[in-house]
Amino acid sequence: MNDAALDEFEAAHAEPGEVGVVVPQDYVSDEPFTFDCGRTIPGFTIRYETYGRLNATGTNAILVCHALSGDHHCAGIHHLTDRKVGWWNNIIGPGKALDTNHYFVACANVIGGCQGSTGPLSTDPETGRPYGINFPIVTINDMVRAQERWLRALGVTQLHAAMGGSMGGMQVLQFGITFPGFVKRMIAMATTARESAQAIAFNEVGRQAILQDPDWADGNYATGGGPKVGLAIARMMAHITYLSDASMARKFGRRTVAERPRSGAAAATVPTAGATDTESHAFDAQFEVESYLRYQGKSFINRFDANSYLYITRALDQFDLAAGSDSLEAAFAPLEARSLVVGFTSDWLFTPEQNRAIAMALLRAGKNASYAELTTDLGHDSFLLESPQLYDLVRDFLTS
Amino acid sequence: MNDAALDEFEAAHAEPGEVGVVVPQDYVSDEPFTFDCGRTIPGFTIRYETYGRLNATGTNAILVCHALSGDHHCAGIHHLTDRKVGWWNNIIGPGKALDTNHYFVACANVIGGCQGSTGPLSTDPETGRPYGINFPIVTINDMVRAQERWLRALGVTQLHAAMGGSMGGMQVLQFGITFPGFVKRMIAMATTARESAQAIAFNEVGRQAILQDPDWADGNYATGGGPKVGLAIARMMAHITYLSDASMARKFGRRTVAERPRSGAAAATVPTAGATDTESHAFDAQFEVESYLRYQGKSFINRFDANSYLYITRALDQFDLAAGSDSLEAAFAPLEARSLVVGFTSDWLFTPEQNRAIAMALLRAGKNASYAELTTDLGHDSFLLESPQLYDLVRDFLTS
Repeated sequence: MNDAALDEFEAAHAEPGEVGVVVPQDYVSDEPFTFDCGRTIPGFTIRYETYGRLNATGTNAILVCHALSGDHHCAGIHHLTDRKVGWWNNIIGPGKALDTNHYFVACANVIGGCQGSTGPLSTDPETGRPYGINFPIVTINDMVRAQERWLRALGVTQLHAAMGGSMGGMQVLQFGITFPGFVKRMIAMATTARESAQAIAFNEVGRQAILQDPDWADGNYATGGGPKVGLAIARMMAHITYLSDASMARKFGRRTVAERPRSGAAAATVPTAGATDTESHAFDAQFEVESYLRYQGKSFINRFDANSYLYITRALDQFDLAAGSDSLEAAFAPLEARSLVVGFTSDWLFTPEQNRAIAMALLRAGKNASYAELTTDLGHDSFLLESPQLYDLVRDFLTS
Repeated sequence: MNDAALDEFEAAHAEPGEVGVVVPQDYVSDEPFTFDCGRTIPGFTIRYETYGRLNATGTNAILVCHALSGDHHCAGIHHLTDRKVGWWNNIIGPGKALDTNHYFVACANVIGGCQGSTGPLSTDPETGRPYGINFPIVTINDMVRAQERWLRALGVTQLHAAMGGSMGGMQVLQFGITFPGFVKRMIAMATTARESAQAIAFNEVGRQAILQDPDWADGNYATGGGPKVGLAIARMMAHITYLSDASMARKFGRRTVAERPRSGAAAATVPTAGATDTESHAFDAQFEVESYLRYQGKSFINRFDANSYLYITRALDQFDLAAGSDSLEAAFAPLEARSLVVGFTSDWLFTPEQNRAIAMALLRAGKNASYAELTTDLGHDSFLLESPQLYDLVRDFLTS
């Protein structure tokens, strides 16, 4: 928060333990940026939020990296009447594990994203139209390099820690390798050092749902339009991989939306992603889990750009830290940070084994690393959820 | 095979151990058939194949039940130049586990299917047009009841065994309950007594991909047309659930289709489910697993009807053997058959736990049942693959 008046307002209205109202900021770099793929853009914008205050030496910053469908809004609210808090609000705030009384917490929308940072939705200065799929291919390392430039501009001289789950964890690991002197601690959760064939497969089905939606139109759809059906399908499917069999059984089981006549008499209405209870077609949402997934798909298309989804899933697929080295351990050689890796027992997207493998490679590389495996049946999304155990782990590690 | 001349031809040309050339047959019932949903159709056709000869007392028949995307063609070839054998050819034939020298093996396309049996593609006698989604809702029990009528017509007085994996296993269990005196042995593999929330969720995403494809046209598409994109997406996604993380890692890993420039220079071509190597778009198939899945999707749309896919996945979702009873054990009370249940360690669609639960309920109900868990990393599809261990299990059980 750079605006003193806003700070005062915020301080006055914030709940104890909450960061309160935050205003997203834009960092604009006028220096050219060259992507790993070799293409250069004349500059870029990074939309971000920060919580807490940067100290005089610029050494108390914690970078939070978001996952595929996340954004820069990881804590607080945007308006006093906002009922939806940032996506990692449970861990960020005064007195919380990422204690904003002590740390300056910063989170940016990744380059290639669609929440304000430069990405496929942005205007291509060469054509005056949105980049669409003429945007350069983005890698996790590109995301990291753009964020480093932004953090330096904020006055951060060294990160107290970089932290993230899923794709956020990939960024954390990459940050430690690409900018070894800049990162003092890394916390990577529910992540992997390289995308598995199964994870690539799920991403590919999502991309095909988008690419083959007629409204994708070679990626040249109007802003606000686009392949909504395909994007919703992609999200519905991906959402299953974020949960677990057990958590879905507990949350939904085989409960039906309502007791409906199951006569099979087919109504003429076409079910949609937002099918309502007034429909009575056999292929309407019959089970609660169907209704839930349709809602997930529907709400996603209102906040996410389909081309960004293509780019970011491609970045995930291409992620393979060991690719340019003899081994993962060799890839970690330059690293200076101490690391905490956290796996979750029921995560079948980025399994405990994959997380443990990261920690083992760090140790083999002679680095200071520890691994914690939290028992949960909530699947991949566990890292986002309430967990005093996780808070304690993080808090202790940050003060180590 | 009822045609003596064909039998001779077949005997002359069959490889040792192979059933050789088979010709699908049609059973036509002119008796009305009332579905569980209450609707009645004036009659139905069942397309089927048989291998081996029915004995004089009609007691040596083994019914093979197919899975979601399967059909009646489970063994042999259709033409001498046919290079593709039936889907369970490895287990059916002279001297094989389902020894056609001793048993009369019969397999039918399920009612609601699209390979010749009455289903959404069939002509509605009331309108003269295909039923489409005016076809009655189909249950696993409907599939079983239609097959029982057909088997009686063939002269089968009692099934030596009913056997199947996945949805085939559901039919087997249902057969034993609905027609207790008719089934002497049941072999149910890689199956469940009720569809889980996660499995329903995957089916629902597949259905949404179909229902929201503009070419679905409320289910009234022309035969041969229809929502090909949606159906391919549904199949690609479902296919992931039939494999395992480990088998995909071994089969594909992160191998790329070819070494391609990853410049990110976007070509104008629109990738399709059948994307070829000539394309160079960043969202083309880059990894082998993507190319494989696209092929799976593409080949499926040439052999499967989208409306059938909707109906059959709905039948899976509604399957819950214990639904009308106090417990699964109570649901099994009428059963007379002895049972073999087989789970596969890497099956995450219908887990070993779900299969074990069936056997446990059978035992609690006082039935003769055994459970075998085969160690494999091939996922749900394990039941279809070469397995001397499985063959021995089945062979021993059939002679017990």
